[in-house]
Amino acid sequence: MIITMKKTAPQAEADKIVKNLEAKGLSVTLIRGTDYNVFGVVGDTTGVDEKIIAANPYVDNVQRVAAPYKRANRLFHEADTVVDVSGVKVGGRERIVVIGGPCSVEGREPLLEIAREVKAAGGSMLRGGAYKPRTSPYNFQGLGSEGIAYLREAREATGLPIVSELMSIDKIDEFEENVDLVQIGARNMQNFDLLKAVGKMHRPVLLKRGLANTIEEWIMAAEYIMDGGNENVIFCERGIRTFEKYTRNTLDLSVVPIIKQRSHLPIIIDPSHATGNWQLVESMSLAAIAAGADGLIIEVHNDPEHAWSDGAQSLKPANFRSVIEKGRKIAQVIGRDL
Amino acid sequence: MIITMKKTAPQAEADKIVKNLEAKGLSVTLIRGTDYNVFGVVGDTTGVDEKIIAANPYVDNVQRVAAPYKRANRLFHEADTVVDVSGVKVGGRERIVVIGGPCSVEGREPLLEIAREVKAAGGSMLRGGAYKPRTSPYNFQGLGSEGIAYLREAREATGLPIVSELMSIDKIDEFEENVDLVQIGARNMQNFDLLKAVGKMHRPVLLKRGLANTIEEWIMAAEYIMDGGNENVIFCERGIRTFEKYTRNTLDLSVVPIIKQRSHLPIIIDPSHATGNWQLVESMSLAAIAAGADGLIIEVHNDPEHAWSDGAQSLKPANFRSVIEKGRKIAQVIGRDL
Amino acid sequence: MIITMKKTAPQAEADKIVKNLEAKGLSVTLIRGTDYNVFGVVGDTTGVDEKIIAANPYVDNVQRVAAPYKRANRLFHEADTVVDVSGVKVGGRERIVVIGGPCSVEGREPLLEIAREVKAAGGSMLRGGAYKPRTSPYNFQGLGSEGIAYLREAREATGLPIVSELMSIDKIDEFEENVDLVQIGARNMQNFDLLKAVGKMHRPVLLKRGLANTIEEWIMAAEYIMDGGNENVIFCERGIRTFEKYTRNTLDLSVVPIIKQRSHLPIIIDPSHATGNWQLVESMSLAAIAAGADGLIIEVHNDPEHAWSDGAQSLKPANFRSVIEKGRKIAQVIGRDL
Amino acid sequence: MIITMKKTAPQAEADKIVKNLEAKGLSVTLIRGTDYNVFGVVGDTTGVDEKIIAANPYVDNVQRVAAPYKRANRLFHEADTVVDVSGVKVGGRERIVVIGGPCSVEGREPLLEIAREVKAAGGSMLRGGAYKPRTSPYNFQGLGSEGIAYLREAREATGLPIVSELMSIDKIDEFEENVDLVQIGARNMQNFDLLKAVGKMHRPVLLKRGLANTIEEWIMAAEYIMDGGNENVIFCERGIRTFEKYTRNTLDLSVVPIIKQRSHLPIIIDPSHATGNWQLVESMSLAAIAAGADGLIIEVHNDPEHAWSDGAQSLKPANFRSVIEKGRKIAQVIGRDL
Repeated sequence: MIITMKKTAPQAEADKIVKNLEAKGLSVTLIRGTDYNVFGVVGDTTGVDEKIIAANPYVDNVQRVAAPYKRANRLFHEADTVVDVSGVKVGGRERIVVIGGPCSVEGREPLLEIAREVKAAGGSMLRGGAYKPRTSPYNFQGLGSEGIAYLREAREATGLPIVSELMSIDKIDEFEENVDLVQIGARNMQNFDLLKAVGKMHRPVLLKRGLANTIEEWIMAAEYIMDGGNENVIFCERGIRTFEKYTRNTLDLSVVPIIKQRSHLPIIIDPSHATGNWQLVESMSLAAIAAGADGLIIEVHNDPEHAWSDGAQSLKPANFRSVIEKGRKIAQVIGRDL
Repeated sequence: MIITMKKTAPQAEADKIVKNLEAKGLSVTLIRGTDYNVFGVVGDTTGVDEKIIAANPYVDNVQRVAAPYKRANRLFHEADTVVDVSGVKVGGRERIVVIGGPCSVEGREPLLEIAREVKAAGGSMLRGGAYKPRTSPYNFQGLGSEGIAYLREAREATGLPIVSELMSIDKIDEFEENVDLVQIGARNMQNFDLLKAVGKMHRPVLLKRGLANTIEEWIMAAEYIMDGGNENVIFCERGIRTFEKYTRNTLDLSVVPIIKQRSHLPIIIDPSHATGNWQLVESMSLAAIAAGADGLIIEVHNDPEHAWSDGAQSLKPANFRSVIEKGRKIAQVIGRDL
Repeated sequence: MIITMKKTAPQAEADKIVKNLEAKGLSVTLIRGTDYNVFGVVGDTTGVDEKIIAANPYVDNVQRVAAPYKRANRLFHEADTVVDVSGVKVGGRERIVVIGGPCSVEGREPLLEIAREVKAAGGSMLRGGAYKPRTSPYNFQGLGSEGIAYLREAREATGLPIVSELMSIDKIDEFEENVDLVQIGARNMQNFDLLKAVGKMHRPVLLKRGLANTIEEWIMAAEYIMDGGNENVIFCERGIRTFEKYTRNTLDLSVVPIIKQRSHLPIIIDPSHATGNWQLVESMSLAAIAAGADGLIIEVHNDPEHAWSDGAQSLKPANFRSVIEKGRKIAQVIGRDL
Repeated sequence: MIITMKKTAPQAEADKIVKNLEAKGLSVTLIRGTDYNVFGVVGDTTGVDEKIIAANPYVDNVQRVAAPYKRANRLFHEADTVVDVSGVKVGGRERIVVIGGPCSVEGREPLLEIAREVKAAGGSMLRGGAYKPRTSPYNFQGLGSEGIAYLREAREATGLPIVSELMSIDKIDEFEENVDLVQIGARNMQNFDLLKAVGKMHRPVLLKRGLANTIEEWIMAAEYIMDGGNENVIFCERGIRTFEKYTRNTLDLSVVPIIKQRSHLPIIIDPSHATGNWQLVESMSLAAIAAGADGLIIEVHNDPEHAWSDGAQSLKPANFRSVIEKGRKIAQVIGRDL
């Protein structure tokens, strides 16, 4: 950690800061500059809140050298973490996973049908929203527990582990019992109480990136979950918010190599929410695999025009199959299976 | 609502959409263009999910003419809503409110001291975080119920209504009982379960704008709360996320006249979180009042260098007083009191 | 084009607008809504300035149905445009091109050496900056004409066509005479006088996307060049500006399928400037090819630590070779050569 | 400047960097950390290109402590710069200036009429575009030299200095001779050749902030002009590009106190382009004055519905007068005249 102080700072102010840091077991070196003095702070600074130091009116700037995360940090955990989702392995050199399914669970029959298509195409898990985060209170909010029940049935019928979004701490028990991979949605990425609660669960977590969250904040969200005791976190990029209007969000694929550099956790890509347009899903899926992603999560619907939500971004089963087939060949080029 | 269809769309597809909309009591007009056909949809379209229509592969584009909100919409509620916070009125032509207090409640004595300073300076309410949303799990997370208790004591000592952030539905009862104005933080602006729960409360709500949320999404978040039955919502702008690095966020003051055009609800400004720098707080506070804001919420601390969080953006009491004094004169110019 | 008018608009105002549009040969249909009236405008609206219509105080909103571009529009030019760069073909089903070379030309010998490496690795063209856009006036500004001369020598030595950035209209003649592919940099994407001048050139143009420009504005910049008579435009995505701090820019690969949908012009990707970090270049290059890009432009330097600019994002020749070899296999999967 | 190196860096690599910096007269201090080694570099680092250092594969990070600008830096020039525009003073404690006029010059009579209104209302200068940067080549591009001639006539008639946008270096002579305040538009803020050329002019420059440029880049653009010899630069904020859709751009008023902290140059605000909506102009103008701006530049048109460009954001003369009258009272509160 580097602290820049104005030359006008009284000695007492500088001493106060140094003493404070040394009390935390850190060691501090002073560099006298022409316009500023600079303190270099050495040791484990994860517990230091830089904003508190920056509150000193003589401090011009505080910058971290080391990342603020520990448990998720590749530096302290060199090997890739492989997350086991009820038997399906994600990360490391494991087979690339492809999760498919409808945006919302709409009923028993339609879900079963889609689940069978996902399975037949070579999908590894089934996704389906039972509790839906919707911008408008007047739009369909999901089937709730009924949807979870249908997902369970679809799992029994196909053997596919199920992925569904948890929106609230009062549903923790329902998800612990029923859902194989618990999704934390983009809008809840910094819902810290939910992250803490999920940190106590025994189910792996799929952590979506927030609409406007930096990679560092995203890793810190994983750190919350891991700090609670749950080390099975899978990152999921789903596009960020920019000024561009032709796509719903801007898919940021550079996160794949960056997450792999900085963390040991797996990362998968959601091209459906990222683009909001099914016509872009195949090319973005292949790009994600080429970039090194550990998996994909894709919306699949057999009648997208009549989907109850997000039909515009859902693939028909035939297109989903095509993505998997081409994706498999791309995977081979970079030495992975799918 | 305007639906643009490709010329290649079979008649049956167009008919399907029209029939669907007419079944909802809407009336549809067709305009044949050279490259596209366009359907104009007339009636109450709030309940129509445009993404479902956009899922039709022949649909090129769906655009709303009318806003997707009703209860918060100025069009259907011409008069300004004045929100009563335990006797302090916010909005309309009422006196501009200034809420002051520490980022985090740090203890009984420090809070009482700040509360008295806020009161003496002419502040109208006391803010203080008891439950804190922090990016890092290793930073101070707030005093919790103990903090709420100190806030109550400070209210008794000064008569100032108290404002505090609610982060989770399991604290609803505690807030209903103790807190005069329930704050929903930026990171929870689209935590829909929390919004629904707050919609059942009998306390007014201070709804912060999300880091990267559009004004429309923000009004829709208010709509969630109002749809639950709680019509006492105050908007609070606290800066949005942009590429700029010299400020923590970019304060968007144009929301003041826009919210007043589109909604009847009051709006206040938080210059402390917006800028992250106490040196910018006075000028942004005066600008907010000149822009027509119904109030300010400002971090105040009597020893910012030793604050447990966000000291860098806290004003000392003397500066807080200065903001109120200058702000009062600006208010008079635009015909308001403070 | 759809014009939304307030119900309070006097008949005369509506008539004025309608007459105006009809005078331009457009036909107008009225749809009476509950809260608004809507006019549908049919015909060639490219010449209509929507902001002028929006200036009417009774107009609530103006939205285009058809895109504002004609010459670059796929709708009116179904076949892919293949751009010929001194014999190297770009676009359509042609071989994917890989352009390599240093950020800045630094001298005769270093450039020749890199050019030979690019050629040996299978690169199709040589890039090199002679005139450099630099944020600071105190940084190296490029060798200018001397740099152009070295590029010519390198072309003679290797047969590779040369690509270099044109920053100012007073260098048009020098570029017309010497440079095979004229690059317009991100910061000049909306330097309209430069676009008009380049529209009169007989050299193909590599048009980089501006730091914060929408895809529509980017296509409109191509439209400027094409409107001047030069139809040989190649788009180049180089990352956009977002809030993310771990990369210099955010590479937006979804532009590849979108440009191909909306335009007939080729598109290539610059992973070096997009990420600012050579360690991310290989994965982003492979992703770009998988997404369907027509080519790559990559910074290559044989001693990046001593490059005069942007060394951090330059590949060493061996890594450049690796990108081409893996890229070739990815290309085959999607039915292209490289 | 702070350089962070990986612990794995060979001594020789570290030595190479240190020697290099010392050769530039800088002194370097080493701090050994647990995970990284850090070098503190002291002296005038404006001429050091941090990207070159960052190119070393063992370097993890390079961060500036001191700002990269000198001439525009408040640190080395404590007094406010007051820019004299043909007799009208801008900056320091001078009277706040209000520049008014049409987006585009549309003809002799209309311009004269608006100029007289601007003068009568108390405006200090007349703005008018003769060369117009337009997104579409099919929209009106400005009257060119004819427009400049009308501006001169309007100046003669009213005594108001004239402000107009320079888009290209081939018009330098025309502007040097005729225009009192030379505007560099947002899209040309990093057109470095134009900045260099303007640095040789003897006319003061109004430098608009780019659509997505940081404050630091903006000050560096001023540095280019000043480095050429022209120290009379006035900053002009006109909104930045964000995800928000209800405004054309997001007006960033926090730049006012920040520019005043970091630079000695004046700053004015353009609420018309920032919002794109005349209904927001008055409140944003008053906010700008309250924030401490040295002036405003506002679009004024006596028949906005028939303006040839940007009518939607133009004020009618009566509203312009109202802004000046209210603005004057706000100015008095903060101790300025208008």
